[in-house]
Amino acid sequence: MVEPATASQAAAPAMPKLKDELDIVIPTIRNLDFLEMWRPFLQPYHLIIVQDGDPSKTIKVPPGFDYELYNRNDINKILGPKASCISFKDSACRCFGYMVSKKKYIFTIDDDCFVAKDPSGKAVNALEQHIKNILSPSTPFFFNTLYDPFREGADFVRGYPFSLREGVPTAVSHGLWLNIPDYDAPTQLVKPLERNTRFVDAVLTIPKGTLFPMCGMNLAFDRDLIGPAMYFGLMGDGQPIGRYDDMWAGWCIKVICDHLGLGVKTGLPYIYHSKASNPFVNLRKEYKGIFWQEEIIPFFQQVVLPKDCTTVQKCYIELAKQVKEKLSKVDPYFDKLADAMVTWIKAWDELNPPAGGSSAPNGKAA
Amino acid sequence: MVEPATASQAAAPAMPKLKDELDIVIPTIRNLDFLEMWRPFLQPYHLIIVQDGDPSKTIKVPPGFDYELYNRNDINKILGPKASCISFKDSACRCFGYMVSKKKYIFTIDDDCFVAKDPSGKAVNALEQHIKNILSPSTPFFFNTLYDPFREGADFVRGYPFSLREGVPTAVSHGLWLNIPDYDAPTQLVKPLERNTRFVDAVLTIPKGTLFPMCGMNLAFDRDLIGPAMYFGLMGDGQPIGRYDDMWAGWCIKVICDHLGLGVKTGLPYIYHSKASNPFVNLRKEYKGIFWQEEIIPFFQQVVLPKDCTTVQKCYIELAKQVKEKLSKVDPYFDKLADAMVTWIKAWDELNPPAGGSSAPNGKAA
Repeated sequence: MVEPATASQAAAPAMPKLKDELDIVIPTIRNLDFLEMWRPFLQPYHLIIVQDGDPSKTIKVPPGFDYELYNRNDINKILGPKASCISFKDSACRCFGYMVSKKKYIFTIDDDCFVAKDPSGKAVNALEQHIKNILSPSTPFFFNTLYDPFREGADFVRGYPFSLREGVPTAVSHGLWLNIPDYDAPTQLVKPLERNTRFVDAVLTIPKGTLFPMCGMNLAFDRDLIGPAMYFGLMGDGQPIGRYDDMWAGWCIKVICDHLGLGVKTGLPYIYHSKASNPFVNLRKEYKGIFWQEEIIPFFQQVVLPKDCTTVQKCYIELAKQVKEKLSKVDPYFDKLADAMVTWIKAWDELNPPAGGSSAPNGKAA
Repeated sequence: MVEPATASQAAAPAMPKLKDELDIVIPTIRNLDFLEMWRPFLQPYHLIIVQDGDPSKTIKVPPGFDYELYNRNDINKILGPKASCISFKDSACRCFGYMVSKKKYIFTIDDDCFVAKDPSGKAVNALEQHIKNILSPSTPFFFNTLYDPFREGADFVRGYPFSLREGVPTAVSHGLWLNIPDYDAPTQLVKPLERNTRFVDAVLTIPKGTLFPMCGMNLAFDRDLIGPAMYFGLMGDGQPIGRYDDMWAGWCIKVICDHLGLGVKTGLPYIYHSKASNPFVNLRKEYKGIFWQEEIIPFFQQVVLPKDCTTVQKCYIELAKQVKEKLSKVDPYFDKLADAMVTWIKAWDELNPPAGGSSAPNGKAA
């Protein structure tokens, strides 16, 4: 459990000895040359590489990195028939890495993301900032106008209720992107030259009851607190949709965090996103999602989870049930997705048997 | 009405000819020397000075500024018995200026606020940024991770529902403070040396359903859209509480904006707040509020306004009724405050008779 901290205590949480507590998950179809730039920050940690596409292809990893690599054959071998819940030919396959990890924290990053610089020109250690975000509490019940009150030099402002200043444990840290912004295909087409050059020096809690578009490019989370809900859905090969994997996970984790009293932060750290994906290809992948999200989001805004959903797994199974009931009428795809959500939880629990046989309310071993 | 704009259209709204559409409201007990620094930005506009305390004292205004000044005698003369709703010996008196204004926009600023500099050293034209915030739509129904999508160089990110991209009219722009942060007395006592040096280059919409601590130090709003709810309550002389005037207004305007589909933004612009108020004096003023807010905030979080509350005035009268019903048990003060809220609306309507005899849903003349 994250200890309730005062703002000043948590303002500069010490970087813990995370070597044995954190995995870095990277989905890829190519050699991981991009890791060279990350070496000073990421080399101490263990990598879980999820190889997408042709399993016979060899992925080269720069020397000195400690890693395990799973291709499609490995996924099929480990999960058997349940491998059907893991997407193929889509970066949604990354969630297999969350499942096989045995660590408390996950940092996931795309292979076209490089180290960003802050306005002073200093390289941004994205992982360190994510860990700071996660190790300090969130404040989802009331908005703090000076943003994260637990950062150095900040605090709760006048009028912030004292009873809410302990905050709640932070489950998710959502980082942002300089250079190529994470736009949808229509916006990419309309604004091909737009680059994000604005470094916003803020971290903030997304308030309870508010949904957000979670991007999987630069994301960290506490696997013990929210891991089983970080399912990236059915995308890519054989599916009618792509590029909504992280969005789907974001909607699911947010309603579950809200229900369980966990926090989601967004803002720092930035990574430098080097390469815009092809907007025409993206449009084909997103096409149905653009329509569907108009019904999916009202669904998630209205979801109510019953009180007896006290673990992430129970919440997620309940959510799958409601997806089947309410979204199958939008498209038969959601019927299949709801089944895959259940399969995902079964596979998760097989690979992650609860210690002592039962789960605590926050999904951690009792 | 704010025209629905595309993100790119509204990214750089032209500074309108606001000379005849904006008043600057300043509550004060002293000479307004601080205006010298603001001259390049504020001299074109009309000032409404609300003199607090001894009415026989003369307030000097730097030459060249166009202003009207009201002291307590003026307030009593203009409002008669209804002057009881205007606080005395507290900056809450500023809301009298909102009432006597005939303009569409109000910018209110404290007399210990100076011009801030952005990280490049450029002086921040706070008023211009407020107007940009107000003239571009808000997005209260879904969080945009790149903050205000209507700013130059920003847009809605992937996964933001297209049906929500028109946004809603912005009623309130809440600006922040460099140097002395707006802390409560306990935090001031604990952190006497803390200064806010973090310039966060962001504007964002406070999501629907989320309350925030609104500070009156650096605030702008659309008087047509939300003016009658900008009541700063009963504070100071003869009252058991102070320093909750802007908080009270903030809770009221937020639930009313949420009900009427209006937006509230916070973030830029910064002012430079020069002087911390005395924490011991503040503690005496805040003492009861620190307890009371623990019950007030759950009240505001649960307030539901009926559908037939289609104008700001109707919403505010209904809110007064609920304050009387639900908060009078906290302290008899709230009974008095609820009455003052009704008096305020009566006085507002007397000084601002609706053109044509009826009010449009957003409080504007039909």
